[in-house]
Amino acid sequence: MAKVGVILSGCGVYDGSEIHEAVITLLALNRAGADVICMAPNMEQTIVNHLTGEPVAGVTRNVLEESARIVRGDIRDIATVDTAELDALFLPGGFGAAKNLCNFAEKGSNCEVHPEVARVVKEIVTAKKPLAAVCIAPALVAKVLGDNQLEPQVTIGTDKETAETLTALGATHLSCPVNEFVVDSKNKIITSPAYMLAGNISEAAEGIEKTVAALMQMIGPST
Amino acid sequence: MAKVGVILSGCGVYDGSEIHEAVITLLALNRAGADVICMAPNMEQTIVNHLTGEPVAGVTRNVLEESARIVRGDIRDIATVDTAELDALFLPGGFGAAKNLCNFAEKGSNCEVHPEVARVVKEIVTAKKPLAAVCIAPALVAKVLGDNQLEPQVTIGTDKETAETLTALGATHLSCPVNEFVVDSKNKIITSPAYMLAGNISEAAEGIEKTVAALMQMIGPST
Repeated sequence: MAKVGVILSGCGVYDGSEIHEAVITLLALNRAGADVICMAPNMEQTIVNHLTGEPVAGVTRNVLEESARIVRGDIRDIATVDTAELDALFLPGGFGAAKNLCNFAEKGSNCEVHPEVARVVKEIVTAKKPLAAVCIAPALVAKVLGDNQLEPQVTIGTDKETAETLTALGATHLSCPVNEFVVDSKNKIITSPAYMLAGNISEAAEGIEKTVAALMQMIGPST
Repeated sequence: MAKVGVILSGCGVYDGSEIHEAVITLLALNRAGADVICMAPNMEQTIVNHLTGEPVAGVTRNVLEESARIVRGDIRDIATVDTAELDALFLPGGFGAAKNLCNFAEKGSNCEVHPEVARVVKEIVTAKKPLAAVCIAPALVAKVLGDNQLEPQVTIGTDKETAETLTALGATHLSCPVNEFVVDSKNKIITSPAYMLAGNISEAAEGIEKTVAALMQMIGPST
């Protein structure tokens, strides 16, 4: 049974993992027969009120504890994950991928990636294991691979300004519609726009389900 | 386009809506062409740390704000919802359905239902519009309908003790496997066990997807 790591970044689109993207990913992986190992950094995060869209001053929550809500508690501190356990990696999106896993939302091409997240991404890619990322999560992948001169090819959809920032990180950006995905064969990276472009949950699901299918195919038959 | 109300109860299985159940419901409804109106009570709730499973003392969150995380902010205070807008109603599960929407988790057959939740459920059922509820949410439906001498027939799976409590509420409990659902034709109620029995997300999805399909069929062709 293929073991696929999933990196979560909190619980809710504006300050954590995009919940639809995370659940659709978990369901598609389970239906494809994968064994999923969820993980998140054990760190504090700031909060956005999802009813109003406004930041909540003076309150923090723990990313690992909030991510645990999406997976009924079945999650590990990413610092404890040995990538030798994994056959592949999946990163759902949501602002948590750009605020907690790295600070791309604030710093753009000057962003820094959480060291344990950078370690896991780098180890998977350099071990030639496949990695998929959707929505804004490809920005983080672009940063880690760009820093290692791996010349990643990724998509975040069609947003010109974000695409230019990815280019500044050392990536090549490829435009992609919401129901498709982009493959970087050299680095074994699959990316899809999801809610960077999706107008509803079905549109997000179509691209994510295709991305999971492509990831499982790239892993190959289980040994 | 059929308009289906979805009542959420927070964000996370141990103190709110079961997130997988909620997202699978939203995806299945969208794919079936329904227009979804999400709602939740505007009230404070207690919190469970989903990493440890332990209650968090001295902290509350707002049910409406936390539910908003599941639906990217697109949610209404249930007190503002006129059921004349709706063709049907769906209640996902999670402990929020038994702790926030009512106090079944604490008081069993002596439970009370949040007045706005009771109003919406009663108005839908007495207007002969279909209602679906999964996981532990049928307990709440049993209480509202039992109080109104409507003799509901529901399932919460196979748990004998919970089933006996539903009987004490004036309901008839029917055992049901995780991948099926139970229909109360007289009251137009469809119920399915979901995570009362599911061992993984695919098992939960199968029963919920069938429940949504049965609900859409019961609504009939859109006018």
